Amino acid sequence: MTIDKPVLLVTNDDGIAAPGIRALIEAVKDLGKVIVVAPDSPQSGMGHAVTIGEPLRLYKVQVFEGIEAWESSGTPVDCVKLARDIILSYKPALCLSGINHGANHSINVIYSGTMSAAMEAAIEGVPSVGFSLLDYRHDADFTIAQDVARTITKKMLEQALPDHTLLNVNIPIVTKETFKGIKICRQADAKWQEEFDKRVDPRGQDYYWMTGKFVNRDKGTGTDVEALAENYASVVPVKFDLTDHTIKAKLEMDWQDISGIQ
Amino acid sequence: MTIDKPVLLVTNDDGIAAPGIRALIEAVKDLGKVIVVAPDSPQSGMGHAVTIGEPLRLYKVQVFEGIEAWESSGTPVDCVKLARDIILSYKPALCLSGINHGANHSINVIYSGTMSAAMEAAIEGVPSVGFSLLDYRHDADFTIAQDVARTITKKMLEQALPDHTLLNVNIPIVTKETFKGIKICRQADAKWQEEFDKRVDPRGQDYYWMTGKFVNRDKGTGTDVEALAENYASVVPVKFDLTDHTIKAKLEMDWQDISGIQ
Repeated sequence: MTIDKPVLLVTNDDGIAAPGIRALIEAVKDLGKVIVVAPDSPQSGMGHAVTIGEPLRLYKVQVFEGIEAWESSGTPVDCVKLARDIILSYKPALCLSGINHGANHSINVIYSGTMSAAMEAAIEGVPSVGFSLLDYRHDADFTIAQDVARTITKKMLEQALPDHTLLNVNIPIVTKETFKGIKICRQADAKWQEEFDKRVDPRGQDYYWMTGKFVNRDKGTGTDVEALAENYASVVPVKFDLTDHTIKAKLEMDWQDISGIQ
Repeated sequence: MTIDKPVLLVTNDDGIAAPGIRALIEAVKDLGKVIVVAPDSPQSGMGHAVTIGEPLRLYKVQVFEGIEAWESSGTPVDCVKLARDIILSYKPALCLSGINHGANHSINVIYSGTMSAAMEAAIEGVPSVGFSLLDYRHDADFTIAQDVARTITKKMLEQALPDHTLLNVNIPIVTKETFKGIKICRQADAKWQEEFDKRVDPRGQDYYWMTGKFVNRDKGTGTDVEALAENYASVVPVKFDLTDHTIKAKLEMDWQDISGIQ
């Protein structure tokens, strides 16, 4: 098989049947050869989970007209591993994950299956990007998100970026008229304030639904949350070396006394 | 209830019945008031997964003599959220996660339920640490790991560290004689090279077991992998702001032309 067009590996965490992945494929399919490997069911909130205690299924499916597609019983990260090691015998040019139904800005990056799939590809040396639309609805309008995904994918194909490049792209709920453009940002310091909804099942046992509200603790500028509030799409470059060098320097000074524990 | 001793929230990802969490509790129980909230079953490889599509169970259990303990049907991250919002009405002094049966050094930090539980607490402003022993066996010898866990917990209680402090501590398989001490390190640039073991089920369908070997691509010094190979316990401070500022600066220069997309 000769490869004349750049191969675009497409995955997501909402499952292969979600409207968002179809929107992504439509937006980029003329920019390269698209190969889809996605979960067979929704996997939101799976983070960087991998399946190690049970076996994985992988089936070739006909879901998108004229596009090679596979579905797996595994997590988004499993899908990328399967794509790299079973389906492709070469590195794809890019890995595109999404378009996610719902926000993955700020701290959401660490809970997001969409971003973890992209991170897994970046660890494998494939420049990657996760796209997320700030609209959780199944029937969300992906028009602007598709424009953004296409623009960024083209740019990443034209301009070689480091192999470990990983971008977290979020798109606000806007119209063509209110959309401001694309902004490069840093991750906002935010968190989820959980509220557990306690209920009692028919057998008298307690159970809890996790709910919560988003809290942006970040008072600074240049964050993804700020850009999105101003109707920009946010682009945060993400890394997977999590070393905190500030605290490392502090411990190297302060913990000398325990470095010699025997 | 008056709180005279610092509260130590203990969790893990191997489940409440794993020998590793018992070893951790034994090692630190006289340093504070231990409260355990852990998964009711093994959750290795769950990464930062959270349970959003189904309800959570939470039961008070008598597993450790004289220690308040709860088990949950959720992931390690769910356990920390439940602890913070349902069980405790205050911030614990520290969150201790582990002792994990198996390594969580280098890139494993992003797949690890042990570390994700600790990260969740750090996001909540609770200084946290995950302990992992490089021995996957159920009957591993936790003696040295217990010494390390106790030393680091004491140090963290004595010396106030920033609220978001999160340490990834790994302990090599050593004896008292061969153990060298504790070393502050950076995360090694490593990855897993997957190998899928393809099999056929009794109904003639393919399935795959994920296996793989660990590849350390890091040629530099000062890494956790290097320290562990030299029989040190490694301590890597970890952060959850994943912004890659190097690539951010590059994109701010190179992507000016698409910043105005309409």
